[in-house]
Amino acid sequence: MSLVGFLQAQNCTTIPASWRHPEARTDSMSPDYYRHIGHVLERGKFDLGFFDDRLAMPDMYRGDHGHTVEHGIRCVKMDPVTVLMTMGMATKHLGLGATCSTTYFEPFDVARTFATVDLMTEGRAAWNVVTSVNDNEARNMGSEHHMAHDERYDQADEFMEVVLGHWDSWDDDAVLVDRKNGVFADPTKVRRLDHDGEHYRSRGPFTVPRSPQGHPVVIQAGSSPRGLAFGARWGELIFAAYGTIENAKVEYAAMKEAATSYGRDPDQMKIASLTFPVVAATRSEAVEKKAAYDELPNEIDQLPLLSEALNFDFASKGMDEAFSDEDLEGLQGMQALRDGVVRRSGIKNPTVRDFIRVSGRGRLGDGWVGSATEIADQLEAWFTEPACDGFVVGPTHIPGAFEDFVDLVVPELQRRGLYREEYTGTTLRDHLGLRMPSLRG
Amino acid sequence: MSLVGFLQAQNCTTIPASWRHPEARTDSMSPDYYRHIGHVLERGKFDLGFFDDRLAMPDMYRGDHGHTVEHGIRCVKMDPVTVLMTMGMATKHLGLGATCSTTYFEPFDVARTFATVDLMTEGRAAWNVVTSVNDNEARNMGSEHHMAHDERYDQADEFMEVVLGHWDSWDDDAVLVDRKNGVFADPTKVRRLDHDGEHYRSRGPFTVPRSPQGHPVVIQAGSSPRGLAFGARWGELIFAAYGTIENAKVEYAAMKEAATSYGRDPDQMKIASLTFPVVAATRSEAVEKKAAYDELPNEIDQLPLLSEALNFDFASKGMDEAFSDEDLEGLQGMQALRDGVVRRSGIKNPTVRDFIRVSGRGRLGDGWVGSATEIADQLEAWFTEPACDGFVVGPTHIPGAFEDFVDLVVPELQRRGLYREEYTGTTLRDHLGLRMPSLRG
Repeated sequence: MSLVGFLQAQNCTTIPASWRHPEARTDSMSPDYYRHIGHVLERGKFDLGFFDDRLAMPDMYRGDHGHTVEHGIRCVKMDPVTVLMTMGMATKHLGLGATCSTTYFEPFDVARTFATVDLMTEGRAAWNVVTSVNDNEARNMGSEHHMAHDERYDQADEFMEVVLGHWDSWDDDAVLVDRKNGVFADPTKVRRLDHDGEHYRSRGPFTVPRSPQGHPVVIQAGSSPRGLAFGARWGELIFAAYGTIENAKVEYAAMKEAATSYGRDPDQMKIASLTFPVVAATRSEAVEKKAAYDELPNEIDQLPLLSEALNFDFASKGMDEAFSDEDLEGLQGMQALRDGVVRRSGIKNPTVRDFIRVSGRGRLGDGWVGSATEIADQLEAWFTEPACDGFVVGPTHIPGAFEDFVDLVVPELQRRGLYREEYTGTTLRDHLGLRMPSLRG
Repeated sequence: MSLVGFLQAQNCTTIPASWRHPEARTDSMSPDYYRHIGHVLERGKFDLGFFDDRLAMPDMYRGDHGHTVEHGIRCVKMDPVTVLMTMGMATKHLGLGATCSTTYFEPFDVARTFATVDLMTEGRAAWNVVTSVNDNEARNMGSEHHMAHDERYDQADEFMEVVLGHWDSWDDDAVLVDRKNGVFADPTKVRRLDHDGEHYRSRGPFTVPRSPQGHPVVIQAGSSPRGLAFGARWGELIFAAYGTIENAKVEYAAMKEAATSYGRDPDQMKIASLTFPVVAATRSEAVEKKAAYDELPNEIDQLPLLSEALNFDFASKGMDEAFSDEDLEGLQGMQALRDGVVRRSGIKNPTVRDFIRVSGRGRLGDGWVGSATEIADQLEAWFTEPACDGFVVGPTHIPGAFEDFVDLVVPELQRRGLYREEYTGTTLRDHLGLRMPSLRG
C-alpha cells in the first residue's frame, strides 16, 4: 500500500478553515513548518509528500481578493519546488513531489528544475503535471485568458514529449569524472533532442545527467475524460478522488485498462485515492473531532474556491439561479468537478447552491471518521478489493491530522502486514515499486 | 568588507579545468557537495554564496557538444535555485543568491520563487538578475535567436518593475493569523499590481507575503554601458570584475555616482569585485599551487566558452583571422567581454588568438598569488582605497580554494578588524548593511 501526504505551500490545507483550527500551527510561511511535516511523514514511512499549486490566489469571486485575504482562503501560494526542497533537505527517505503547470512554463526549464530536485534529493523527486485552471492564473502570467480545456491537454502531451525526451538524453552511465584522463563524460552517451513541434521547440543537449532513479516520477491527477486519457498515457502515479468504493472499483480498473491500451504495463502505474480521515483513539472521540471541524468553515469559504476551480465568477449568478446548458459548456476550468456535480446531484442544470452543496469544495465533507481500527478497515477494504494501490492522505489541519494518522493508523496497517515497517529502498521509485525508466530512444 | 562566494550549479567552477584538479571533489551533482561548500562559507562568515547560471551548455563552438561533454567544459547546468535551497537548508546565517534570467521567464513566477526562497531561508535570499547571452539558450527555451543586447535590457527594466511591484504588494504587517477572529490578513494591506506594460502583463495580487528582510536583495553584474546603467538603477549588490586597482577606483566611483543619478543612496549599493586568490601558508607554496593549476587546462577549454559568451561560433574563423568592425558589432552576447579585449589589447580588430589570450576566459589568469598576509594586503588596499566594498571570491577548485581562503585569509582580515568575527544579524540585508526596503508605492 502506498501512502501520500497531500500538501500545500500555502496558509492552509485544501480546506481553508484548517488554519482556523485551534491546534493548527500558525507559521505556515516558515521552514520549520515544512520540516516538521516532513519528519512526521517520514516517521510514518510515507512514500511521498506532494505539493499542490495554483498560479493565482482565488480572487475570481466578485473579482476581489479582500475576502480571500481576510479569511485566509488559500490566499498564500508559495513556489512549491522551493518549499519541497525545504522538506527534502530535512528528510532522508521521503519521496517529494511538486506541481508544475505545462501551460505557463517552458519544458526545458521544468525538465531541468525537477531533474535537479531529483539529484539533490538523491532520487526522491516527483512532478505532478497539471495544465492550470483559470483566467486569473493566465493574467498573472502574461495572458488574458486561460486556454480551453482540451486544447491545453493537447499542448501538455507535447510538453511531456519534450520533458521526457530531455530526461532521456543522458545515458545512466554517461558521467565518468575521470580526472586522470580528463574525461568528464562519454560524449557518445549524451544526445541533443532537437524537438521542433507544434507548440514547443527545444534543442538541447539537456544539461542535467540522470539521477539514481533515472528521472523524476510523473504524477497526474486529471479526472475529466481528457485528463484521464492524459494520465493513462503519462502518469506513473495517479491521484484520484473516487468517492465510493463501488465507483473506485470501476474507475480503478478502467484506468489500468487505459494504461494498457497505451502499451504500458499497468503494474507500473500506481493509483492513490484521496481521503481526509478523522481518526482518534475511539470512535466517539473521532466523531467529536469531526463535529468541531465542521464548526470552522465560514459562509464564504466555498464560493471563491468554486469560482477559481471552474473559472467563473459565482457572484454573477443568484444563489438559486440555474446554470444553463450553455453556461455549463462554457466552464473550462476543472470539468470533472462540473460533471461530478451534475452526475451526483442528478440535476441537469444545477444552481449555485447545488454547486456548493454537492461539490463540498473546500469543506471536509463526510469523509472517514473513526478509530484507528475502523480507518484501517476502510483502507484495507479499498486496497484489497482492489479499488486503489494506496491513498493520498489529506489533512484536516497541520500538523495534527498527519500526526494522528501516523501515530494511530500506520501502526495498525503495519500490524496487518499491509504497510512497510521500514523503508526498503532509497529512491521514490523503490518506495512505489516502479522500475528504473529505460531510455525511450 | 563583504565577502561573496562565487558558485556554480555545475560540474566545475567558472574554470573548466577545476574539476580535473587532483583535490577537487568528484561529486558535484550530489547534495553533500553543496552542503559542504555552505558550511565552509559560513565558517568563514561570508555574506553570501551565489550561483551563476546559463540556460544551455557551451556547445556553440563547431555547433557540437561532444568536446564540451568530454572535457567537462561547464556541460552540467542544474537549476540554481534548487541547488541554492540545498545549501540554504544546511546553513543558518549565510546569504543565498541565485541567477535567473529576465529574458525567458515570467516576472510573476520569478518574483514568487525568490520571495519563497526568502521566506524559507528566513530572509537570506538574493536574486542575480541577468538577461542571458546566446542563441543556444534561446533554442532550448523555445525561440530561435536571443534578443539583441540593449533591447533585452529595456525589457529587463520593465521586468524589474513587475517583480518589485509584486514584492511590495503586501505590507510588512499585513499577515495577522488571528484564529480567534478568523482574520488571516488585513485585506487593506494587500494590493493588486495590475501591471499592463509594453513587454509584460501581470495582474496580481501577489501570493507571497514579505519576508524578514522585506524582499530578496537584487544583485546585478552587467558591465557593458547598458548593463552598468541597469545595475545602477536596480542593483543593491553589484558584482564587478575590475582587474586593476587603478581601473577599480574609477569604475567604483562612477558606479556610485550613477546610482546617485537615479536618486538612490549610494551607500545602499554595495560593490564586490571578483578575484581568484591562490593562497598558501607561504608565498612559495602559493606560487607552486598556481603553477600546478596552470597545467590543468586543455587547449580547447576556452573556445566553447568564448563562443557561448559572445554568441558566435569561434570555429567559423581561422585562429589568426581578424574580426572586422562588422563582425564585432554583430557580437550581441557579453559586449563588455568584447570591448575589454579590444581595449586591453589595443587591437582594433582582434583575431581568435587575441580573444583567447587577452580575455583569459575560462582560465585562472594572473590573479592574486601569495601568503595569507599578502592576499589580505591586497584586499585591504582595495577596500580602503575605496575600490570596492568587498570581494567575490572565485574558487580555483572545490572545496580546497574556499577552505584555504577561510582558514588562512579570513582570520588575517579579522585580526586587522576588516571583517566580522561573528554574524551580527540574521538576514542578508543585515550582513550587507542594507536597510529593509520600504514599500515603493
